[in-house]
Amino acid sequence: MPIVEAHILEGYSPEEKLRLTAALTNAIRLVVPASDEAVTVMLHEMAPENYARGGTSRSPAPANPDPKQVALAYLDAMEARDIDAAEAMLATGFRMTFPGTKPMSSISELIDWAKHRYRFVKKTNETVEAFYEGDCSVVYISGTLSGEWPNGEAFAGIRFIDRFEIKGEKLISQDVWNDIAEERQK
Amino acid sequence: MPIVEAHILEGYSPEEKLRLTAALTNAIRLVVPASDEAVTVMLHEMAPENYARGGTSRSPAPANPDPKQVALAYLDAMEARDIDAAEAMLATGFRMTFPGTKPMSSISELIDWAKHRYRFVKKTNETVEAFYEGDCSVVYISGTLSGEWPNGEAFAGIRFIDRFEIKGEKLISQDVWNDIAEERQK
Amino acid sequence: MPIVEAHILEGYSPEEKLRLTAALTNAIRLVVPASDEAVTVMLHEMAPENYARGGTSRSPAPANPDPKQVALAYLDAMEARDIDAAEAMLATGFRMTFPGTKPMSSISELIDWAKHRYRFVKKTNETVEAFYEGDCSVVYISGTLSGEWPNGEAFAGIRFIDRFEIKGEKLISQDVWNDIAEERQK
Amino acid sequence: MPIVEAHILEGYSPEEKLRLTAALTNAIRLVVPASDEAVTVMLHEMAPENYARGGTSRSPAPANPDPKQVALAYLDAMEARDIDAAEAMLATGFRMTFPGTKPMSSISELIDWAKHRYRFVKKTNETVEAFYEGDCSVVYISGTLSGEWPNGEAFAGIRFIDRFEIKGEKLISQDVWNDIAEERQK
Amino acid sequence: MPIVEAHILEGYSPEEKLRLTAALTNAIRLVVPASDEAVTVMLHEMAPENYARGGTSRSPAPANPDPKQVALAYLDAMEARDIDAAEAMLATGFRMTFPGTKPMSSISELIDWAKHRYRFVKKTNETVEAFYEGDCSVVYISGTLSGEWPNGEAFAGIRFIDRFEIKGEKLISQDVWNDIAEERQK
Amino acid sequence: MPIVEAHILEGYSPEEKLRLTAALTNAIRLVVPASDEAVTVMLHEMAPENYARGGTSRSPAPANPDPKQVALAYLDAMEARDIDAAEAMLATGFRMTFPGTKPMSSISELIDWAKHRYRFVKKTNETVEAFYEGDCSVVYISGTLSGEWPNGEAFAGIRFIDRFEIKGEKLISQDVWNDIAEERQK
Repeated sequence: MPIVEAHILEGYSPEEKLRLTAALTNAIRLVVPASDEAVTVMLHEMAPENYARGGTSRSPAPANPDPKQVALAYLDAMEARDIDAAEAMLATGFRMTFPGTKPMSSISELIDWAKHRYRFVKKTNETVEAFYEGDCSVVYISGTLSGEWPNGEAFAGIRFIDRFEIKGEKLISQDVWNDIAEERQK
Repeated sequence: MPIVEAHILEGYSPEEKLRLTAALTNAIRLVVPASDEAVTVMLHEMAPENYARGGTSRSPAPANPDPKQVALAYLDAMEARDIDAAEAMLATGFRMTFPGTKPMSSISELIDWAKHRYRFVKKTNETVEAFYEGDCSVVYISGTLSGEWPNGEAFAGIRFIDRFEIKGEKLISQDVWNDIAEERQK
Repeated sequence: MPIVEAHILEGYSPEEKLRLTAALTNAIRLVVPASDEAVTVMLHEMAPENYARGGTSRSPAPANPDPKQVALAYLDAMEARDIDAAEAMLATGFRMTFPGTKPMSSISELIDWAKHRYRFVKKTNETVEAFYEGDCSVVYISGTLSGEWPNGEAFAGIRFIDRFEIKGEKLISQDVWNDIAEERQK
Repeated sequence: MPIVEAHILEGYSPEEKLRLTAALTNAIRLVVPASDEAVTVMLHEMAPENYARGGTSRSPAPANPDPKQVALAYLDAMEARDIDAAEAMLATGFRMTFPGTKPMSSISELIDWAKHRYRFVKKTNETVEAFYEGDCSVVYISGTLSGEWPNGEAFAGIRFIDRFEIKGEKLISQDVWNDIAEERQK
Repeated sequence: MPIVEAHILEGYSPEEKLRLTAALTNAIRLVVPASDEAVTVMLHEMAPENYARGGTSRSPAPANPDPKQVALAYLDAMEARDIDAAEAMLATGFRMTFPGTKPMSSISELIDWAKHRYRFVKKTNETVEAFYEGDCSVVYISGTLSGEWPNGEAFAGIRFIDRFEIKGEKLISQDVWNDIAEERQK
Repeated sequence: MPIVEAHILEGYSPEEKLRLTAALTNAIRLVVPASDEAVTVMLHEMAPENYARGGTSRSPAPANPDPKQVALAYLDAMEARDIDAAEAMLATGFRMTFPGTKPMSSISELIDWAKHRYRFVKKTNETVEAFYEGDCSVVYISGTLSGEWPNGEAFAGIRFIDRFEIKGEKLISQDVWNDIAEERQK
């Protein structure tokens, strides 16, 4: 039954409000075992002049971009080997860990490490999930890898999962797990 | 600034309401870049007799258990080799995948497979995250593994991540990734 | 979808709140073609000290009795020939009209008129409906009459409808239509 | 004192909202003995994109036509002997009962029956009342009949009442009571 | 923490809504020791057709002018010796008291009295405060007086305070206290 | 028409809620020319566990004492020459100004100054007004003084006004104006 009302400043796009609606519905369902149909969400938009905190009106901050899209755009840039675009998405202090690596902080480190592992790799995404916890968005993307080993042999269907922490349009971290070593030792 | 009001039937415990409050706060922050302090949540509890849909009063469904606790209890039972307790937590149709395995559906399958891999393994959890998407809760637990190889040698600090799908008190699926093969091939 | 919230002073009984809930649901459905299930009603009860008009707190007025019950109690008293009880339910200025009568204002007038029509009559109610319009409640009761003609012959299945105007526990008017004459002329 | 707030999707006309406001005011007054002035109704209209059930936005259904107008239009068509227009307003399964008749389902049956009763009849309406109960609107119209008996003599001032069940623009049933037989037997 | 929501008819200007927002914030803080930042005010504006009392829609009354501005405009007119403008601002029954005077009701009385006290006087305002109590707005203005004594000597820095009662655009009363006599007797 | 809803934490006393209700009613009336009767205030009290900002529940701060009572208690203590009680009510940094004085900061300074002015003085209060502005409550008390001049002669009916700034239970400032000098020079 839960009915959720959110009072927000006006100015968010239909797509942003849809994301908000979905997130609030999921928040309820995490705790209350209502069917999806039983959760009603109402967004009440307010003109800035009709809202005040401490007697002062406020303007709406631009919405966060969809963190799923941010993570996917980064993976696309990496797959397209558009290193500049990918680098531009990294927050100061960015840190990434791949199977068997120490934490790395730049894409060039990653490329150095990866070139001994495969000629190229492509991701086929099966799940893309996002939520907010602590003080950033977290995105999980899992699916399978395909590509070529250094010797030119093809591989496919190798499970992977990536975890991203994202603030605004920037990646704070990327953690990657996959079954490449499992596959190689067969 | 967002202010969220949720109308719920009375009967949820303080702990359940705290989880709900936190989930709604996170839902807002996924989309609106408000600081944590700027998100206000009000829960309005209603006596069943004061709420009607279609002219009929409703009783509150018991809250979902905290899916983080469900996943952790399962991992505890596995670590304690309390197979009965762990089996009791599996939903009909449960399915699990470990590095290099086909999907398995019973704990005995898992034990068969694992006994060639290590004598025992312990998890040190670093992140435990839960959210709701689709029609179940999803829990991610990541951290490091320690234990003994079949030859009795100790290992530690091997990264892992588990993904659980949970409905109520039952696990629907478990997917595991880790760096064991990576470590073994060194 | 409509969601109705009514803020009322606390103190109404569950039965009274159920009537209120039903009336609000029906009010919505008179205009909005929502299914019954799609209309949500929330009653918000307030302690008198939390409500003020013109800076003054208010006490809740006792609810109106269910006008259907008032009308039915009157008909029961009449059928049981408990004239005192029936008279006690008539408002000052009460007025009633039966088929072929002038407006009458007392039960003795009615008895005089009726004794030439039948020895006794019983009502089998099929519909009992109530709503509020103008400044009183209106109740319609329809069904069939059975009884004995003055000559002792039995009759049954004769259609009737009564319309009552009711304020609080008192009847303001009763208007009766039925097929007795229709039946007699056969 | 009651304050009623209804959250509806935007798109209803001022006339429709006025009907809704009146119905909600009457609903309150059926139970709470507030003066008309003491009942406040606020309609909160929502853009479809700001309302979601189960995470999905909804469009407002067109309002029900005013059932009083539907019933009156039917009586006008009958009085004007516009049989096609009247037939077009009958729902599948329509059923009507007049004094002394079996249930009839078509207007031609009614005309056959009525031609022995009067040359023509006109209704002067005194009360027109509508409410919603069960799963349709109910309209009561009462007043007096005038017309000519089969022998050409005029009559007037004969009490009648009609009860209609209405869904959308269609009549589900019509039940009629009046004092014609009463009058004839004098 | 208090969150205040005010439902008002639409049509008030941003400046009027800002005054309302500030007044509601101050009202809360008079009782609840929240910091200014912790008081949130939301104004919900309603189209007249969406608000009904007793089933009747209402139009918004024009806002009261800012009583501070009314009082200041009166003092400006007096200082500019624009007697007509000042007179036009006095309500029927206006009454004023100055140090040592009986209540006076016209500006000419005031001028007669004042001419023995100083050649002219100017006000330097330090505080201008307004609130509502009883059935009118009250404005307090305090600061210092400067001007010339009847003998042409200058004076300055003499404390004063004026209290005004104001309804709409009219002054109901003015009460003045100051240290002129204190200063003269030195 | 305005309807004001304030969401507050539960725990305030009926007297405190009455003050809040009155203050909110006055706040509306400062701007909207509604009659007192037309302003409805609803206080919604929340259990601390049902309210969260930034995901953290809050406890209600104790209400401010009524600043009118604080000011009157101070004047009572002064009139009763209970210097200790009066001193205990002064905030650090307290400042007071009387007719013809420099700002003083202690009650002993005041007593020194006053002893040349009168043997004793009593206040008859006519208006006591309080509101909140800036970051403290302001109280105005006006009326008339009576007492004895140093020579033992009685006086009465001398106008005065006191302005207090108050935070919690402490006075921040007192400013006094009166007609004593006016009276003495007669």
